[in-house]
Amino acid sequence: MVTVSFEQIHDKTLPIRDRMEALIRQKQKEITDGLAELDSVTFHTDSWIRDNNGGGGQSMVLQDGTTFEKGGVNISIVHGKLPAAAVARMKADHSNLKGCDADGSTNFFACGLSLVIHPHNPHAPTSHANYRYFETSDPESGEVQAWWFGGGADLTPSYLYEEDAKHFHQQHKDALDKFDLSLYPKYKKWCDEYFYIKHRQETRGIGGIFFDDFDDRPADDILYIIESCFNAYLPSYAPLVAKHKDDPFTEDEKKWQQIRRGRYVEFNLVLDRGTQFGLATPGSRVESILMSLPATASWVYDHHPEQGTREAKLLQVLQNPVDWV
Amino acid sequence: MVTVSFEQIHDKTLPIRDRMEALIRQKQKEITDGLAELDSVTFHTDSWIRDNNGGGGQSMVLQDGTTFEKGGVNISIVHGKLPAAAVARMKADHSNLKGCDADGSTNFFACGLSLVIHPHNPHAPTSHANYRYFETSDPESGEVQAWWFGGGADLTPSYLYEEDAKHFHQQHKDALDKFDLSLYPKYKKWCDEYFYIKHRQETRGIGGIFFDDFDDRPADDILYIIESCFNAYLPSYAPLVAKHKDDPFTEDEKKWQQIRRGRYVEFNLVLDRGTQFGLATPGSRVESILMSLPATASWVYDHHPEQGTREAKLLQVLQNPVDWV
Repeated sequence: MVTVSFEQIHDKTLPIRDRMEALIRQKQKEITDGLAELDSVTFHTDSWIRDNNGGGGQSMVLQDGTTFEKGGVNISIVHGKLPAAAVARMKADHSNLKGCDADGSTNFFACGLSLVIHPHNPHAPTSHANYRYFETSDPESGEVQAWWFGGGADLTPSYLYEEDAKHFHQQHKDALDKFDLSLYPKYKKWCDEYFYIKHRQETRGIGGIFFDDFDDRPADDILYIIESCFNAYLPSYAPLVAKHKDDPFTEDEKKWQQIRRGRYVEFNLVLDRGTQFGLATPGSRVESILMSLPATASWVYDHHPEQGTREAKLLQVLQNPVDWV
Repeated sequence: MVTVSFEQIHDKTLPIRDRMEALIRQKQKEITDGLAELDSVTFHTDSWIRDNNGGGGQSMVLQDGTTFEKGGVNISIVHGKLPAAAVARMKADHSNLKGCDADGSTNFFACGLSLVIHPHNPHAPTSHANYRYFETSDPESGEVQAWWFGGGADLTPSYLYEEDAKHFHQQHKDALDKFDLSLYPKYKKWCDEYFYIKHRQETRGIGGIFFDDFDDRPADDILYIIESCFNAYLPSYAPLVAKHKDDPFTEDEKKWQQIRRGRYVEFNLVLDRGTQFGLATPGSRVESILMSLPATASWVYDHHPEQGTREAKLLQVLQNPVDWV
């Protein structure tokens, strides 16, 4: 049930969870509207509910478009019991968290928006963004115990355009600098570290921002920062797609994109914590979790681009992250 | 260094590890020769060595063939220190295992053959097989502590041909029945359980045999059983490829194969213990581990075949494993 409208999201008298829910609902609409302007196919909406009345979500997916091969913008708003084992694990980072019921469990609420967009054209980059809020509360009193925000946005090109990488980073830096100059450098580095594919010794893409366990200032203040990051997404990404969606490309360039998509799949299935957690959680909606996977991907045994090519140039940057701004 | 020839593999005076190594080297040659007869492209051979003198392996890969889109037959023979943590974990199943060095580690040796074959034609099934031997030994005396064999073979069709499924299972049942009638039923069930993709609630394919920690009889006897399973692979699989490699197919059938390949990738990257262990092991050869991934795969959001179609029939069998023989 949405009880808070988007206009009320900064009303401090309302619960932060409801204000975050209103924010993600609004941003799902704005982002899908913005992306749909670049395609002649539009997003298809699916709503789903979680078993045992534990909330649900809404997936918006565009497949086989003229610009986008596959793109999904998903929101979920779920709640329920957080088992004792999860309480123990999360306690390390959140000292307020405690098991309240006899079995050591407590109540949790989580909501977030997650999106992944894969264009057809190998010169147009893939992008991903995710912003989320998590809280636990006493099952008896309903009092909030621990809460935090997490999220980020990152860009995964198959061909490097330095000005695009700079643009994407600059937009996100501006979104954070308004509030605190220390955030962008920290979140940029965190992003490079999080999206590092250890077994390939390369990052998934050219980075962006990433953060988790964000609770070091009032939630009211963080909500402004999250909103600002959300607002950076479309202006950081849509112009890059508009610029490259009709670029001419060769069959070899398409093959290279497919190999890079294979790496994307490797990261998401082997390393991404959200995906692994989701797939291991009984009752989670698998289609919404795996919406992030590209429509097509490829694996070529022992593939290495020739030195001096644009493909090799990309790898070089993925192996040695660059400070873009 | 191979010091034992294939003719000597049942000479009980020789160490079992050297005899298993001779067996996998011989079978790599026989299997690649047998499969290459079905294609006009042949296998490419890569040898690799592990850092710090810990052994190595030989990958044989066929890509972009006329029959096979991608196939790899890999052997590896590695040895080194087994850390205390791994000793503790493996001890549950192998009481002879113990840490010997001051740091709780011991010595290990492992060798095995692993293969995955993906044909182009959606009516020709994918197959996988793997047979391996593992032992630990006292770093001082060299005396063997614990040892075991593991392995299996399984079939992954995109379209079900019941007679093919029966043929594949019958060949492997015959290979085991010669020695012990209790093995096939046990290993068939284990295979269905191991290749179950929990988050999809379906098995990866129509099964075969799977076993691990096999040490309940003399290693000399088990080596005969492993050899018999190896010998079942080509006659169980090659005729199915020969039969279907030139079947006519539609674009939709190719798309369905690509979706099934996506599920193959999901199993291998999310659930396969060997893959996860390999990717997490520093110094392992990633290209040989991920050789199992198909050349092409696809993910379609919320795809469900229509009732009554051949695609739905396959899913039904994957959701409810069948006793084929």
